[in-house]
Amino acid sequence: MEQMISEHLRKSFPFWENLSAAERQRLAANTVAYKYGAGQNVHSASNQCVGVLLVKAGGLRTYMMSEDGREITLYRVPEGGVCILSASCVLQNITFDVYIDAERDTEVLQVGSAYFSKLLAQNIHVENFSLKVTADAFSEVMWTMEQILFMRFDKRLAIFLLDEISRTGSGALHLTHEQIAKYMGSAREVVSRMLKYFEKEGIVRLARGTVEMINKEALKDMAM
Amino acid sequence: MEQMISEHLRKSFPFWENLSAAERQRLAANTVAYKYGAGQNVHSASNQCVGVLLVKAGGLRTYMMSEDGREITLYRVPEGGVCILSASCVLQNITFDVYIDAERDTEVLQVGSAYFSKLLAQNIHVENFSLKVTADAFSEVMWTMEQILFMRFDKRLAIFLLDEISRTGSGALHLTHEQIAKYMGSAREVVSRMLKYFEKEGIVRLARGTVEMINKEALKDMAM
Repeated sequence: MEQMISEHLRKSFPFWENLSAAERQRLAANTVAYKYGAGQNVHSASNQCVGVLLVKAGGLRTYMMSEDGREITLYRVPEGGVCILSASCVLQNITFDVYIDAERDTEVLQVGSAYFSKLLAQNIHVENFSLKVTADAFSEVMWTMEQILFMRFDKRLAIFLLDEISRTGSGALHLTHEQIAKYMGSAREVVSRMLKYFEKEGIVRLARGTVEMINKEALKDMAM
Repeated sequence: MEQMISEHLRKSFPFWENLSAAERQRLAANTVAYKYGAGQNVHSASNQCVGVLLVKAGGLRTYMMSEDGREITLYRVPEGGVCILSASCVLQNITFDVYIDAERDTEVLQVGSAYFSKLLAQNIHVENFSLKVTADAFSEVMWTMEQILFMRFDKRLAIFLLDEISRTGSGALHLTHEQIAKYMGSAREVVSRMLKYFEKEGIVRLARGTVEMINKEALKDMAM
């Protein structure tokens, strides 16, 4: 078990090589395997600093919640990802708080915030890694905000997909992302990113050269 | 001039002490004083990487813009502040872009992104500083988003202020932030932060124990 944890930490943390043998051992000793059930809350403002989470299986959803309980999904941490905002208390420059739930049955390695915080204060590489994961989260949030606040491209893509399946009478589109981008006067990267977002939302399923519609109703809602 | 620039860089950059004498000199040599007129665009997606900006006087406004030209202010960089998103190209973990304008006549020191990027790649202290400024920006953006998406506390505070001035028949409230927080069942920090936001927006003017209404119409719009 301990061997498995060390191995996972080594693969997930690029600063592993900048730790002493004693630090590595102590980091592993402060890490536990943990399971969250689908929908279970992992982190909230009142339940702070569970620690850094390494997602082994399943996935986490990070969201904001209004006083009246309205939720806005900010981004997801997939299998293999690192969740840092669950340890936001160790990062001085992060002054907001978010909610984090397990989106489905999820297995994590939970790196205790007390020892992580100590390492971060001592080792600039640990700090560097944490700040980079935070900057990645910032980029994800900005993308989500653009979608929410401006609602342009997702709507356009939903309309395009609906038009195409109604035109071809098939439940799947046999087009590459490159071709879709060309038809829509957009860039391949933009199309790919949005299709991946649709896939995460369970709206489409992607395979090489194919976009299969899973939830046509959601697409129609989006196109309105 | 060169002396002034070095002195300003030393005060603004905590990593100054981690640079060699040659690096300090070269950083200063790659920095220029620059003036932007009120409303002038400083940075946009098509005009990338002007560099890191140190605001000597005036202030910068960072915002998102939709395809149809709608703007959403994300945060402001005041006098004495550091603007890093104007050099977002040097940060690999920042994959979005924003617009930055001078909010009024603004003097900056502009640290060229080419040399800054080189330093950042070589020196983890430079990188960590840049990432910390980015995390600060993330925190500011999250706060703004909560206001925009949930619109709770600003509305409540606007209603409170309007009620009070109508009750007292005066254009100014003689209450401390602590007292306002008590009346509203909130925390002093929350009230102070929102009042400062109102002040930046030109809605109120703050002095010790006093909140003076400057733009009552804006308050009324907010309370609706």
